[in-house]
Amino acid sequence: MSILIRGGTVVNADRAFKADVLCFGDKVVAVGENLDAPSSARVIDAGGQYVMPGGIDPHTHMNLPFMGTVTADDFYTGTAAGLAGGTTTIIDFVIPNPRQSLIEAYQQWRGWAKKAAGDYTFHVAITWWDETVHRDMGVLVRDHGVNSFKHFMAYKNAIMADDETLVKSFRRALELGAIPTVHAENGELVYQLQQDLIKRGLTGPSSHPLSRPPAVEAEAANRAIAIAGVLNTPVYIVHVSCAESLEAITRARANGQRVYGEALAGHLIIDDSVYQSEDLEFAAAHVMSPPFRGKHHQDALWHGLRGGNLHTTATDHCTFCAEQKAAGRDDFTKIPNGCGGVEDRMAVIWDKGVNAGLLTPSEFVKVTSANAAQIFNIYPRKGLVAVGSDADVVVWDPEGTRTISAKTQHAKGGFNVFEGRTVRGIPTTTVAAGKVVWHNGELTAVEGAGRHIDRPAFSAVSAR
Amino acid sequence: MSILIRGGTVVNADRAFKADVLCFGDKVVAVGENLDAPSSARVIDAGGQYVMPGGIDPHTHMNLPFMGTVTADDFYTGTAAGLAGGTTTIIDFVIPNPRQSLIEAYQQWRGWAKKAAGDYTFHVAITWWDETVHRDMGVLVRDHGVNSFKHFMAYKNAIMADDETLVKSFRRALELGAIPTVHAENGELVYQLQQDLIKRGLTGPSSHPLSRPPAVEAEAANRAIAIAGVLNTPVYIVHVSCAESLEAITRARANGQRVYGEALAGHLIIDDSVYQSEDLEFAAAHVMSPPFRGKHHQDALWHGLRGGNLHTTATDHCTFCAEQKAAGRDDFTKIPNGCGGVEDRMAVIWDKGVNAGLLTPSEFVKVTSANAAQIFNIYPRKGLVAVGSDADVVVWDPEGTRTISAKTQHAKGGFNVFEGRTVRGIPTTTVAAGKVVWHNGELTAVEGAGRHIDRPAFSAVSAR
Amino acid sequence: MSILIRGGTVVNADRAFKADVLCFGDKVVAVGENLDAPSSARVIDAGGQYVMPGGIDPHTHMNLPFMGTVTADDFYTGTAAGLAGGTTTIIDFVIPNPRQSLIEAYQQWRGWAKKAAGDYTFHVAITWWDETVHRDMGVLVRDHGVNSFKHFMAYKNAIMADDETLVKSFRRALELGAIPTVHAENGELVYQLQQDLIKRGLTGPSSHPLSRPPAVEAEAANRAIAIAGVLNTPVYIVHVSCAESLEAITRARANGQRVYGEALAGHLIIDDSVYQSEDLEFAAAHVMSPPFRGKHHQDALWHGLRGGNLHTTATDHCTFCAEQKAAGRDDFTKIPNGCGGVEDRMAVIWDKGVNAGLLTPSEFVKVTSANAAQIFNIYPRKGLVAVGSDADVVVWDPEGTRTISAKTQHAKGGFNVFEGRTVRGIPTTTVAAGKVVWHNGELTAVEGAGRHIDRPAFSAVSAR
Amino acid sequence: MSILIRGGTVVNADRAFKADVLCFGDKVVAVGENLDAPSSARVIDAGGQYVMPGGIDPHTHMNLPFMGTVTADDFYTGTAAGLAGGTTTIIDFVIPNPRQSLIEAYQQWRGWAKKAAGDYTFHVAITWWDETVHRDMGVLVRDHGVNSFKHFMAYKNAIMADDETLVKSFRRALELGAIPTVHAENGELVYQLQQDLIKRGLTGPSSHPLSRPPAVEAEAANRAIAIAGVLNTPVYIVHVSCAESLEAITRARANGQRVYGEALAGHLIIDDSVYQSEDLEFAAAHVMSPPFRGKHHQDALWHGLRGGNLHTTATDHCTFCAEQKAAGRDDFTKIPNGCGGVEDRMAVIWDKGVNAGLLTPSEFVKVTSANAAQIFNIYPRKGLVAVGSDADVVVWDPEGTRTISAKTQHAKGGFNVFEGRTVRGIPTTTVAAGKVVWHNGELTAVEGAGRHIDRPAFSAVSAR
Ligand SMILES: [Zn+2]
Ligand SMILES: [Zn+2]
Ligand SMILES: [Zn+2]
Ligand SMILES: [Zn+2]
Ligand SMILES: [Zn+2]
Ligand SMILES: [Zn+2]
Ligand SMILES: [Zn+2]
Ligand SMILES: [Zn+2]
Repeated sequence: MSILIRGGTVVNADRAFKADVLCFGDKVVAVGENLDAPSSARVIDAGGQYVMPGGIDPHTHMNLPFMGTVTADDFYTGTAAGLAGGTTTIIDFVIPNPRQSLIEAYQQWRGWAKKAAGDYTFHVAITWWDETVHRDMGVLVRDHGVNSFKHFMAYKNAIMADDETLVKSFRRALELGAIPTVHAENGELVYQLQQDLIKRGLTGPSSHPLSRPPAVEAEAANRAIAIAGVLNTPVYIVHVSCAESLEAITRARANGQRVYGEALAGHLIIDDSVYQSEDLEFAAAHVMSPPFRGKHHQDALWHGLRGGNLHTTATDHCTFCAEQKAAGRDDFTKIPNGCGGVEDRMAVIWDKGVNAGLLTPSEFVKVTSANAAQIFNIYPRKGLVAVGSDADVVVWDPEGTRTISAKTQHAKGGFNVFEGRTVRGIPTTTVAAGKVVWHNGELTAVEGAGRHIDRPAFSAVSAR
Repeated sequence: MSILIRGGTVVNADRAFKADVLCFGDKVVAVGENLDAPSSARVIDAGGQYVMPGGIDPHTHMNLPFMGTVTADDFYTGTAAGLAGGTTTIIDFVIPNPRQSLIEAYQQWRGWAKKAAGDYTFHVAITWWDETVHRDMGVLVRDHGVNSFKHFMAYKNAIMADDETLVKSFRRALELGAIPTVHAENGELVYQLQQDLIKRGLTGPSSHPLSRPPAVEAEAANRAIAIAGVLNTPVYIVHVSCAESLEAITRARANGQRVYGEALAGHLIIDDSVYQSEDLEFAAAHVMSPPFRGKHHQDALWHGLRGGNLHTTATDHCTFCAEQKAAGRDDFTKIPNGCGGVEDRMAVIWDKGVNAGLLTPSEFVKVTSANAAQIFNIYPRKGLVAVGSDADVVVWDPEGTRTISAKTQHAKGGFNVFEGRTVRGIPTTTVAAGKVVWHNGELTAVEGAGRHIDRPAFSAVSAR
Repeated sequence: MSILIRGGTVVNADRAFKADVLCFGDKVVAVGENLDAPSSARVIDAGGQYVMPGGIDPHTHMNLPFMGTVTADDFYTGTAAGLAGGTTTIIDFVIPNPRQSLIEAYQQWRGWAKKAAGDYTFHVAITWWDETVHRDMGVLVRDHGVNSFKHFMAYKNAIMADDETLVKSFRRALELGAIPTVHAENGELVYQLQQDLIKRGLTGPSSHPLSRPPAVEAEAANRAIAIAGVLNTPVYIVHVSCAESLEAITRARANGQRVYGEALAGHLIIDDSVYQSEDLEFAAAHVMSPPFRGKHHQDALWHGLRGGNLHTTATDHCTFCAEQKAAGRDDFTKIPNGCGGVEDRMAVIWDKGVNAGLLTPSEFVKVTSANAAQIFNIYPRKGLVAVGSDADVVVWDPEGTRTISAKTQHAKGGFNVFEGRTVRGIPTTTVAAGKVVWHNGELTAVEGAGRHIDRPAFSAVSAR
Repeated sequence: MSILIRGGTVVNADRAFKADVLCFGDKVVAVGENLDAPSSARVIDAGGQYVMPGGIDPHTHMNLPFMGTVTADDFYTGTAAGLAGGTTTIIDFVIPNPRQSLIEAYQQWRGWAKKAAGDYTFHVAITWWDETVHRDMGVLVRDHGVNSFKHFMAYKNAIMADDETLVKSFRRALELGAIPTVHAENGELVYQLQQDLIKRGLTGPSSHPLSRPPAVEAEAANRAIAIAGVLNTPVYIVHVSCAESLEAITRARANGQRVYGEALAGHLIIDDSVYQSEDLEFAAAHVMSPPFRGKHHQDALWHGLRGGNLHTTATDHCTFCAEQKAAGRDDFTKIPNGCGGVEDRMAVIWDKGVNAGLLTPSEFVKVTSANAAQIFNIYPRKGLVAVGSDADVVVWDPEGTRTISAKTQHAKGGFNVFEGRTVRGIPTTTVAAGKVVWHNGELTAVEGAGRHIDRPAFSAVSAR
């Protein structure tokens, strides 16, 4: 069946123009003015609205096993929530346990993801090192559509990668045409600061940001970038949350190094006052790493997106319900880290970015979709509204409003960090893989309709 | 008549892909694999080659009246030379004399440009200020397709704009949807340094760079950016030649300001040792402003292009023959400033940029064509190979070589700053406005075939 | 008569040590442990206290003629207030009217200063340029003990120096062994922003900071530094109030340029919320230029002092009473610019700097006294407690407290920007030129006791 | 016996002034004009010369056991060479083997140092960590006059300290009033690059700089600074060799952090072209870490000293003769790292610094003596010519010249990195601990005359 999106303004990363968009099967088959609709076509009226490539959230954790429990959102509920918010593709993480086979872990995650309602693909974390890891990285790239590997510089005594692992994995990625990504926090400093705070009896959630100050993040970002620079690999820094970390990226880019940075919707909008709440459950609900930061960091992140030193926006969607968060009631280091957002990212970024004049609509498309597609090599299949691209399209009403609330959201976990904010600029229709999955507030996501998206290795010519 | 460019790899700013390109009239009418050629079509074999949007040189001076003489290249010879090098559009400058009517000057230049073989459009310089200038800026934007105004911060006692003029003109441009551009050198310092050098008897061309050190340029760039920042206008800095000036841009961009920078092919490749030549005619032939710089500045400029802090490449093509240059034989301040390059820009940037691994082919397209088209609002008509775009296409042989020489060039002036360099990567065919104007070394440019390209004012949504 | 200061800890810029200090005549004649007091000596018990060089305020305006009126403090009341606060020397400004003879203006100020109770010396402002200015600068340096010249980059249509004046004066200063200083604000931008605000009906004091944003100051600082750099002169930036301006200094210093920066006590402590007061008289009382800034600028200034990128602290003491301030009731641009502080500088900087752990006592001496003495070439006569130095000594009780108030201050004007702040760390005794002028809250300053301090030109060897 | 140094210009860090200097016993007992000499006094004519505090070299390795051999200079020859060059105090390093008791190692070095001809004191390296190290750091500070601890971030599989050790040791130092110092190079990257180069058959000394590029040093400097910043300790970076590393220091200082940097005489003057020599013995003789760098880094280091972002100059004097260097003939990683310089530091820095106008004589004293004395808490005993200071004085002839050569030097090892350079500005007399040890080219150093200098812990008030 065909879908004709009629009368809107198509916004791509490079320009905006009036055009109708015709989808057939799972592809866009025509973009132009006054397109004829096949008689069977469903016609979506996009008059006065923008028609943009579906959002890509390059950082989510659905169904993540953690401390004997598992995140509230699985791949179905998580991707469905994304579709309701205009996000049609997620990039999730395979996180092997130390000593676990990469391939085995990868297959586990692929199994969990079968129920996804939207498209998905995976970064694979390198949490340890030996020759089998070296070998399996090759297998993943060649046979399984993986072209990015994740490294945690934090989480000492768990999944933290030391410098030796970083060096060996970055080099291997280069050889394979894959891009290394890092969670940048100095795990040793975090660990020592946590110990100190606990020793001093400061066990509540307000200690969480004290254990992970900006300098801890900036150090690690700078180190990862230095290693990448010396080895001549590109590198992608996930969830850049503070001015100091962004400065490390900006410096490196000014020196011609290919470094990419990701900002989370939460870090762009929420500040660290949340940790001072007397409602400890509320404070704990905001515990994620890196933590929310002081207000001037938000300005810095917006400037980073605007000036081209940050490239993508994500959520690190990783939901835990209040009972799960309560595991850290007496020790903030035991609070499961994570917040949601996959459903709200597009709207809050439009509201605070485009409405505020910080971003143009085309820049919005860049940072919510096109850049992620290019960096992770699924462009122009994703990230572009054009003939031949996947029929992942969001119709965006710049005048529509919505008040965000955990009560009305589709994501699980019972909490929303954006609770009570009214945004202007919302998706009225989401088309994913050629199907209308969200329309005028009705979600028609189908469990299992999502597909794994293979991402080819970078070739010399495609490297950016 | 149609032209089918067959078998090449289309390179746009956002991606590269195998496709044939069909031109009809002055437009691209089809892009796709295995296109059928109309029987009448001329078929160009692009096998093993790249097919890219024609180059845009956003900074040239053809037919420039100067000191009672006029540049060696007029609009015909200059644009024809550009076509031979793959550049299909130039943006030249209308430079009114102080107190001259802007409209009168604009009409003068339009008259001179009628003979152009390639497309052209104009920045208009604001060299003085009163209410008629304010008014005429509006006329130019509304009625004459001008959306950019140029300001010289150097050339004291001639066309230098003081801070009052900068402030008033930048603000007027903002109001009109036009972008201010600046030649950034502190004219007062240049003047004083020139006087000193002359007083000390240092009258030769080797004094030229001493009178315009990097700090003189960086100060002015910083000042123009500060003024733009305070007034909330975008600003474009022409011919950024040194690390310090680039740093001013990089700082502002990191702070979220919309600043754009242009690098000249000459500044990217040639260093200041040319001024030390014992052949004073050779040294004088290199006198342009800003001057060529020490080697580490070249590295900085490449890093600027790579990291997105510089956006366009130009030439400041402004040719004078040896007799004209000789006017400054006894006083370097009298040497007509200017060098050529419009014919060589694409090839030298490919050679030093793409071949050296500094730029990908897509980045090459950005900095030679697409970014200029976007910044000056003629995208996607120019700067893109896509259906509906102008049929300005260059077929690029990455293995072809050419040794640059004044003896074999099409530009006038009898000198070439790139003399003797052998480049790898050359245009084999240039199509301009749907006509083959350069093919396998044969130039078939037609005097008068070039068109003035109206550039609409920026709307809020298009601003980047 | 002798004075023996017994039992304290002498704090100089380079170290702190237990010692008694003996003054005789107007000099320090002995520094050592267990000094014998001449029988006639007055003994001051400094047990548990610090003994430091008297403060130098390098930026005051006493008796300043302004808009047909004159500042509230003359040289007697102003210097007496300084003595009560531990400041024994001020550097004031001779500000010739445009076209006024420098020598004539200098003599005027010298006449007004005769009544001073504490030592004083003068910067002379260069507010215009011709050959007589060039000549008179020489006369002032050779014959009148002037070694610094001030330049206002703001105050268009009044005393603003354009780039030509800056270049010529800086160069002349270099030749003479004098140091140029600048009030750094882009006067053109201030003027335009003022006009706009007035035009928009925003005539109240809350418009004052809007007309002088940080970028306006940073631009001018950067320009002055660039001019100094090109001409190879040192330069001193007065009242650095914002992070961006400090960054310009920091950059230049990192590049090896000799640039010095001054922070005002007010800018270090007070933020721009004062301009939002509904009490317009209160807001107007804070109108000075540059204006008070947002909170993060205060952090930056402290970091500048701590890291050695700022060198001195001053007050720009320039008091107007409420009636005078009322001249701008209907137009903020007419409010006489200026605030007080000469009496409070030392205490507020100790309180916010030393008590807060930002500065050591030796660093306090550097930034309140020694650095100014070195930069303006009156060291070690001033700025050091050592044999042979002037007997300008302050005994400082780190545990003493005082609540600052206009009601109890000695300075005139009826207002105090630090009103109501209780500081810990106060002068218990001030010795100036060998006389006790302040002791346990009693001020015994003598009108006319102050002396003009000649400052010799810098020699190559003394340049820092 | 007394020594009267007559007729010179005393240069201290804060000023220069004409004065005679009288030494008695091991102290300076008078500084003033026209001092009377006791009849027994030896009179040194310092007419036309400078009289400065004896140099302090804060980074030497005398008698260092290494790879089964030992450096060519022991404490006698090394300190004697220092005296010949005007350096009267060295700070050497105790480097325990991993698992060796700190106290035991310290006693070993104290034993070796007994033969020293000049004063000495020790940094103690923390090369491993357990509770005994924690305890012994306290013993060293309280009982043995140690107030600084060294950490090697390079030398993997040997003495490299990991982040855990850095964090624990920095924190312990803070608690004890000691300052941490670091050799900043990322040991993991060095190791990997070395392995690669060897694997590729690049075994010669020209591979040495390739294995330790600037980014490797800058990363470690930034990391050490970040750790110190988070823990709120000061930190001292030894042998800063490159612009990037200096930038990390400059950034931190601009943010108000107390970071100190040391430049080596060699890094200030010699560039990396030495490694390209076809004389492999010559190249190997220059192998030290960090390696010599490209020319623009030298400019940066001088700017760092001038602008106050670098504080001390040292040598890392660590001499090996050609036979010892030959151990790495077939594998550059086996070449013993180290070069000399203790004898030449003062002269080469004067020549390239003061003669070139980069440093004033007072700044020369700062960076060769006074700053080291202050940072390591032996000021004003050392680093100052004043009554009560140690009689460590150098008489400096700014017009004297010397051509440096291994043939005429007093240091051992048979090589001199400054070979053949003629310096202007040399010590004519060195007085150490009140004895003339060098006079008009005659060295009268006495084995065993040197003393261990206890350095007290920092108190809150003395911290700078
Ligand atoms: Zn993470
Ligand atoms: Zn995550
Ligand atoms: Zn120009
Ligand atoms: Zn031009
Ligand atoms: Zn001022
Ligand atoms: Zn003032
Ligand atoms: Zn070392
Ligand atoms: Zn060493």
